[in-house]
Amino acid sequence: MGVERVLPFRFDEAEATFWLLDQRKLPFEEVWVPVKTAREAAEAIRAMVVRGAPAIGVTAAYGMVLAHLAGEALAEADARLRESRPTAVNLFYALDRMRPAWGSLEQALETARAIWREVEETERAISRNGAALLRGQVLTHCNTGPLATGGYGTALGAIIEAWRQGRITHVWVDETRPYLQGARLTAWELQKAGVPATLITDNTAAYLMQQGEVDAVIVGTDRMAMNGDFANKIGTYGLAVLARHHGIPFYPALPLSSVDPALKTGADIPIEERSPEEVTTVRGVPIAPEGFPARHPAFDVTPHALITGIVTEKGVLYPPFDEALGRALGLD
Amino acid sequence: MGVERVLPFRFDEAEATFWLLDQRKLPFEEVWVPVKTAREAAEAIRAMVVRGAPAIGVTAAYGMVLAHLAGEALAEADARLRESRPTAVNLFYALDRMRPAWGSLEQALETARAIWREVEETERAISRNGAALLRGQVLTHCNTGPLATGGYGTALGAIIEAWRQGRITHVWVDETRPYLQGARLTAWELQKAGVPATLITDNTAAYLMQQGEVDAVIVGTDRMAMNGDFANKIGTYGLAVLARHHGIPFYPALPLSSVDPALKTGADIPIEERSPEEVTTVRGVPIAPEGFPARHPAFDVTPHALITGIVTEKGVLYPPFDEALGRALGLD
Repeated sequence: MGVERVLPFRFDEAEATFWLLDQRKLPFEEVWVPVKTAREAAEAIRAMVVRGAPAIGVTAAYGMVLAHLAGEALAEADARLRESRPTAVNLFYALDRMRPAWGSLEQALETARAIWREVEETERAISRNGAALLRGQVLTHCNTGPLATGGYGTALGAIIEAWRQGRITHVWVDETRPYLQGARLTAWELQKAGVPATLITDNTAAYLMQQGEVDAVIVGTDRMAMNGDFANKIGTYGLAVLARHHGIPFYPALPLSSVDPALKTGADIPIEERSPEEVTTVRGVPIAPEGFPARHPAFDVTPHALITGIVTEKGVLYPPFDEALGRALGLD
Repeated sequence: MGVERVLPFRFDEAEATFWLLDQRKLPFEEVWVPVKTAREAAEAIRAMVVRGAPAIGVTAAYGMVLAHLAGEALAEADARLRESRPTAVNLFYALDRMRPAWGSLEQALETARAIWREVEETERAISRNGAALLRGQVLTHCNTGPLATGGYGTALGAIIEAWRQGRITHVWVDETRPYLQGARLTAWELQKAGVPATLITDNTAAYLMQQGEVDAVIVGTDRMAMNGDFANKIGTYGLAVLARHHGIPFYPALPLSSVDPALKTGADIPIEERSPEEVTTVRGVPIAPEGFPARHPAFDVTPHALITGIVTEKGVLYPPFDEALGRALGLD
């Protein structure tokens, strides 16, 4: 779509290596980490060298390719990858897709390539469908661009496409504490794409909405239940409440593979609690008194009632979401 | 009230020095900065060596004492102090109180001492009045303890008093980006006072409210209009919206000296925009791509409709706030 995009990984078959761009070090250093086994792939996912639900899915798929190449036990590799991040359904989706391809390296490689290609095609459609909804000034949270997916991105893909089409004038980037995916990654991707954008602390969003400086909020989705409730980066739920209070449209963007047909509502989505140290330090620097307790839920669940429309590769879905999602997933 | 409290300043008459505890370095280092002129006092306020509306007021009063001691032109000293922070009305209040005492050092010193003593008496009353409203788990934002005031604190004074009285079980401390007053100062003060508390990122508050883990929100106030609209640290307005959405009581706590009778509504409160660098760095460490633009409104205005009750030294005020504030200020 004619904008610079940096992908989070590349596979080198000759070297039997899946290279990951270490996202913990961006935007300060561009370090590529060689991953040669499923065990290393699982560890890289857990340590957030790679993050973002679709990118985790592709990494897990190539993790199974590496298991073949490295001669690891496939069942063990699969189990290890499944345990690396509990919230992202794409991980399970990709590993389920890989199962029938356990038979040979060729099959595994072909399936992993197909999963990656589908991410790209799906996100091209999501970006176009989302772009059509946006105008003026848009606010986003966390990082949902090519870095998070290996494709075009979901919410950030829509934003970049909307800018390319001349639909929007400016982007507000939530810094997204504690991990600062907004400040570090979304800012970096928007800078590379040449989109006018301004960084804010997460607690500034409400003020900008009050001032009439936010025309839409669009965010990614880690996992969606069949009624439209969805888990995403901590802070998303608060933005949804604030958008509703100010009459601002609020859109989650996601591939339909992030919808979990087994979940009726968001009440059943497990919320990953991560290390309190990620709250009490920033880039390794302490920000609180030594030993002070902290709580770090990494995600929250936004109830469907706060959603204006759900942006998918099959178009924008409107309430009642259970019916619309059922149709989009072909479950009718 | 029997808990350890650390004051942000002390005056040494023999040395003709007002000593400030450098709050930019807390909780990592305890450094006392000597201030010997009104010019230095104004600079210390501007640079946030001292912060918090009541503490700024006391510092400005002693700044005028220093002007006498250092032989500075009083009108110039007064003007310089007034310009140091545009939002805090206590600054203007203290300097107005000092004006009739321009005649001699003795008068200036006596008035500055009286201003400080009144801060302490006022906050003892605010803390008791606020404590009576609290129970269970309380969430607060920014820093409003003894460090911010020179007395007992406002919102945090009420929290500490409520703990002392056995009314509350636990405190959620918003880290309060970008300046991290919550993570650095409120956490430190609660630790010293022995109150069980947990640090969270600002964007976690909504999640905890949704989970039923917040029974009340109490915050400080930099400046209040006669209708109850009030300016406070950026992020306060969002918390008020979230508290309303979840049916959680929301209280600003303040001395009546923070009410500006000249302001009918919050629309006229000027919002200080501070350096974008405070957003793009944390404790001097960059968190965004170099040169990336940032926006940093330091305060926001919460409309009175979102307030459950206003905690003052004259009791808790309930709607209609214009009438209640008029009575409390003796303006009827």
